[in-house]
Amino acid sequence: MSRAALIGLDWGTSSFRAFRLDAEGTPLERRAAARGILQVEGGAFEAVLLEQVGDWLAATPGLPVIASGMIGSRQGWVEAPYAPCPAGAAEIVRALARHVTAGGATIHFVPGLSCEGAHGVPDVMRGEETQILGLLAEQPEARLVVLPGTHSKWARLEQGRVVGFATFMTGELFSVLRKHSILGRLMQEDAEDPDAFARGTRYGLSKDSAAGGLLRRLFSARTLGLFGRLPAASLADYLSGLLIGSEIREAMGAVGEAAQGEPVRIVAGPELAARYRAALALAGLAALSVEGEPAARDHAALARAAGLVPEA
Amino acid sequence: MSRAALIGLDWGTSSFRAFRLDAEGTPLERRAAARGILQVEGGAFEAVLLEQVGDWLAATPGLPVIASGMIGSRQGWVEAPYAPCPAGAAEIVRALARHVTAGGATIHFVPGLSCEGAHGVPDVMRGEETQILGLLAEQPEARLVVLPGTHSKWARLEQGRVVGFATFMTGELFSVLRKHSILGRLMQEDAEDPDAFARGTRYGLSKDSAAGGLLRRLFSARTLGLFGRLPAASLADYLSGLLIGSEIREAMGAVGEAAQGEPVRIVAGPELAARYRAALALAGLAALSVEGEPAARDHAALARAAGLVPEA
Repeated sequence: MSRAALIGLDWGTSSFRAFRLDAEGTPLERRAAARGILQVEGGAFEAVLLEQVGDWLAATPGLPVIASGMIGSRQGWVEAPYAPCPAGAAEIVRALARHVTAGGATIHFVPGLSCEGAHGVPDVMRGEETQILGLLAEQPEARLVVLPGTHSKWARLEQGRVVGFATFMTGELFSVLRKHSILGRLMQEDAEDPDAFARGTRYGLSKDSAAGGLLRRLFSARTLGLFGRLPAASLADYLSGLLIGSEIREAMGAVGEAAQGEPVRIVAGPELAARYRAALALAGLAALSVEGEPAARDHAALARAAGLVPEA
Repeated sequence: MSRAALIGLDWGTSSFRAFRLDAEGTPLERRAAARGILQVEGGAFEAVLLEQVGDWLAATPGLPVIASGMIGSRQGWVEAPYAPCPAGAAEIVRALARHVTAGGATIHFVPGLSCEGAHGVPDVMRGEETQILGLLAEQPEARLVVLPGTHSKWARLEQGRVVGFATFMTGELFSVLRKHSILGRLMQEDAEDPDAFARGTRYGLSKDSAAGGLLRRLFSARTLGLFGRLPAASLADYLSGLLIGSEIREAMGAVGEAAQGEPVRIVAGPELAARYRAALALAGLAALSVEGEPAARDHAALARAAGLVPEA
């Protein structure tokens, strides 16, 4: 137990994950629980922390804790206001919100990032900035990164800083359309159809304005089923491709233009990473999956930048 | 009762509407019930018809019935296969599916229309073709028409025929995003905010690829609320504008290009028509609302074309 140097918390809306790390950032132990901030009643965050990792804190008095994700939002425990872009490790470390618990532990809440997009529309991320710092610690040459998910984030990086990013509601749209719209009615579960995925991706990638945009193209996930041109079991893969293809087309216009020719780094679990690799290949874009144990790596990188553990 | 010449049925997924019309197409009586095809169990369509308008049929033996909407689909009573575009009154009349009920009434089921869009993607409408025939009977000069709703339809008309059309999932997307996505969480009910609607519309209309497309722009309905730049009570109007603006941008590329300069006819109820008029004005497009009692007019026009009632 004596080697522990840091606790990293990845505490989001729906899940709690904790990592006990040594001074080199190597994970000694991991824990996870369905104790996201929406599952914590009455703001009893310290009670949840003790219930999950109280033994780690007791075993190493003074062990620093770094917490990223929605736990640092207005709806979380302690708000760490968004750091405006451009921002890298230095800006994020400066914006850490420190809080000493009743039990005497110091928690460093990681701020999210904000940026100002076209048309006076702001954008935000919270949690992904820590993943990007982890990526940059290992691959400082990264220029363009996608973090797919419920709300996909694409970020453009320069000299170790996030200079701009954009959010795409891809994952959430897939989920609500499948569960709650007419498109889900024809869908059947469980078949994997890479051809249907590719067909959807190509349609989503198309810049042909005669095909309309997403509002029109979505309806194809109904009509292709209705006319028997795609089997019901393939429609979910088709819709997934259509949305991911649309995301890539949009992102290359909004974020990627200045990074043309640079490979797109994908930070995702293996299944989602494979989908994005396939879609990026259809778009003619080079892609690199980021391997390793991301959350531990990310929190260790941030702790080093904050001087909480020695430099690697 | 002796003047009745026709029964028109507008029988869709969620509602049943009936019109008893005289030979001139003037409505003598109307009825409506929540007896859409999804509310009819075990295919008991004739029972519902008798329950709703059995007295009309009994009072005028041999009275023809015209039924439009999803009742003529595979999930309905009798399937009237889609007539392919280009199609006008003559093609639609030729494709009517006739059915004599056990009680001896003849029902003429109106086919929907299909067309083949870009990228080998088919499109369909069912019910709207009858509304378009009603419009054309009064305004044969119409070139471009929008029928807003759950699935908005834009159709291009030439010489009394539909030469092409496209579907946009605008209304359904608004509904599922508001009810089931993160965008609905910040929204409050019941305020009308024309400025927020206009702001959303302009953002939706923008062709600026730096702003991304719909997947990105949707997230603005969250961040503008999060940063206090739009009040929570205005976010629904903002999202409505964003979607309608996006629809108009897409539709002018997919359907409207060949009809540039022609006014867009809007076939909708007053509230929705006002939204589309406002959005089309922001797009710099001329718009005309189609007035009158649409369903009765539409079925009368079709009955005249089919020779079931005398020409007007």
